[in-house]
Amino acid sequence: MITTPTLLLNSEICKKNMRTMHEKAKVHDLELRPHFKTHQSLEIGRWFKAMGTKRITVSSLEMAAYFSKEWHDITVAFPVNLLEIDRINLLAKSITLNLLVESIDSILFLKTHIKYPVNFLIKINIGNDRAGLLPNNFKSIDRIINASNSSNLLKFIGFLGHAGQTYNCRNTHDIIHTHLLAKQRLVSVKQHYQTQHPNIISSYGDTPSCSIANDFEGIDEIRPGNYVFYDLMQVQIGACAYRDIAIAMTCPIVAIHEEQEEIIIYGGGIHFSKECITDAKYGTIYGLVVTQKETNHWNTPIDGVYVKGLSQEHGVIHVPKALLPLFAIGGLVTILPVHSCMTANLMKSYIDLDKNKIEMM
Amino acid sequence: MITTPTLLLNSEICKKNMRTMHEKAKVHDLELRPHFKTHQSLEIGRWFKAMGTKRITVSSLEMAAYFSKEWHDITVAFPVNLLEIDRINLLAKSITLNLLVESIDSILFLKTHIKYPVNFLIKINIGNDRAGLLPNNFKSIDRIINASNSSNLLKFIGFLGHAGQTYNCRNTHDIIHTHLLAKQRLVSVKQHYQTQHPNIISSYGDTPSCSIANDFEGIDEIRPGNYVFYDLMQVQIGACAYRDIAIAMTCPIVAIHEEQEEIIIYGGGIHFSKECITDAKYGTIYGLVVTQKETNHWNTPIDGVYVKGLSQEHGVIHVPKALLPLFAIGGLVTILPVHSCMTANLMKSYIDLDKNKIEMM
Repeated sequence: MITTPTLLLNSEICKKNMRTMHEKAKVHDLELRPHFKTHQSLEIGRWFKAMGTKRITVSSLEMAAYFSKEWHDITVAFPVNLLEIDRINLLAKSITLNLLVESIDSILFLKTHIKYPVNFLIKINIGNDRAGLLPNNFKSIDRIINASNSSNLLKFIGFLGHAGQTYNCRNTHDIIHTHLLAKQRLVSVKQHYQTQHPNIISSYGDTPSCSIANDFEGIDEIRPGNYVFYDLMQVQIGACAYRDIAIAMTCPIVAIHEEQEEIIIYGGGIHFSKECITDAKYGTIYGLVVTQKETNHWNTPIDGVYVKGLSQEHGVIHVPKALLPLFAIGGLVTILPVHSCMTANLMKSYIDLDKNKIEMM
Repeated sequence: MITTPTLLLNSEICKKNMRTMHEKAKVHDLELRPHFKTHQSLEIGRWFKAMGTKRITVSSLEMAAYFSKEWHDITVAFPVNLLEIDRINLLAKSITLNLLVESIDSILFLKTHIKYPVNFLIKINIGNDRAGLLPNNFKSIDRIINASNSSNLLKFIGFLGHAGQTYNCRNTHDIIHTHLLAKQRLVSVKQHYQTQHPNIISSYGDTPSCSIANDFEGIDEIRPGNYVFYDLMQVQIGACAYRDIAIAMTCPIVAIHEEQEEIIIYGGGIHFSKECITDAKYGTIYGLVVTQKETNHWNTPIDGVYVKGLSQEHGVIHVPKALLPLFAIGGLVTILPVHSCMTANLMKSYIDLDKNKIEMM
């Protein structure tokens, strides 16, 4: 029996999302190296394995260590944290570890400190402007590659880019346009180095591009992660529909304020995260309420009902007066989250369709 | 050795904050029932015990269960979650449990389901407009009190209000003004019922009011929580100074982008939370960078340096070109958090001045 805020997982939708991406990768002859930071679960990882996935992406060495129990080719898609050199060596001893480098300082440090073979990709800023070298910064790229040449343990395997700027898109047309520009930046740098390094790859990411685009010419590998669950942010971007969202929070109703047209739930920032989106109709929202057919089967959002605020443990939901009779103190309300990665990270486990608990990292 | 994002606790500042509030409560003849949702730690709880604290506040029954190992009078300052009736009975069996009620439905449910004595306070909306009954809603208040009268186990002990609207203040003058209005709302409802119920209390909260105000006439108990650590939000509100902030995040530097005047840290939304404030000089910020004298001793923020963005694991810090030489890949950067309650909740432990680990719930 559910008594506190709980994260529900509809594994049918989740597996459907996984299959769709799996098949798309096959059609475009892409290696799918899914990002596991979204679900952070060995058990969900096994669903990927059953579909044939052999290589994965994570966002921290801690996560790599967790998944290394069952996965033996892991890319840490985050600029390498030199302070964790002991963990790097421990992992490199037992699995194929692919690190991300974007500075000469990092490669020189690795060169003198690694004890086992390690692959590295060079991070390229393909328009997201968060991390990476610009695609035409050949001087810095050359220095990194050259520094690694004299090492028996460091192997340069390609370029990695993340088109995070697709998160600013609001429709599929925007996504495709943004994707094509971002992809071209990554492809151009690979082409520049391909003669010298014929086996290098271009590794490309982000759920919006991988969900919507159909031109992956020049790309070898994709690393989407969020698509296993999707969320309201992805609906807003234009990357999916409500029916593709595979997780939902269910929360106890603790108060009803008729005059204010609000219900108060046990479920706040420590459960959902404080991630919000600006909805055209409702303004700032932290989630949308759905009706449930049965546990883990839900409908699309109820018109006019939305999470308008979150504090540490409280959530405030706007409910038009006419719909208030749908809700009762002591009952539960089910909510589609704004950002599934952040919500899953906070909740630390899922309840699946069979009411089993799926553990996370 | 610190290798990943780590939450530092300066216990000297923390204990100084605790002492200041403790003495203030004494001067004003107030019962201090500190809110433990900020630190969520049995060990920090013991520092309160050493100062004479006997009663505490928490925000969930789960937190009450955790603290019930060492505390025997706990108020759950959250509208009672009826779905957790089993946990309520378990707690009420062994400690003095004070619940928060704001509806007739909840009191009727408790009446038929509780098995041990439970105290309850009625939640009053004193201007925060999140939860509670309006102070002049005597009809609803009467119904709740009357419904409890026939129960041997349910005891009405007073009214509770939280002046959360002080979080919109931006200076001490605003805080005092807002506080006086909020306090009056709570005091008025207590006065209305005092003749009939001579032993009831008025329980009042929030860190800004309790830190700044000096008129607590009519208030019996205060429940501030955040003041043990404070944070950038409290500085912005006008509730404290930078030097009062007792926790800071220290994070590995993984990249430096000179042209963009940015450094990239390992430390993102899953460490800090996505809570942000709008700074007059910098716009939206997620933290301010300080220099460190030694572990856990830090200075006030470095002018011009601020956390401008957070994704799941990445943080992007703006650093003016002239200051970039202060930072190096493989080094650490120390950051004052925007909202210490949310950051502590995510980090789950502290490193204290003696480099010991302090565990949390």
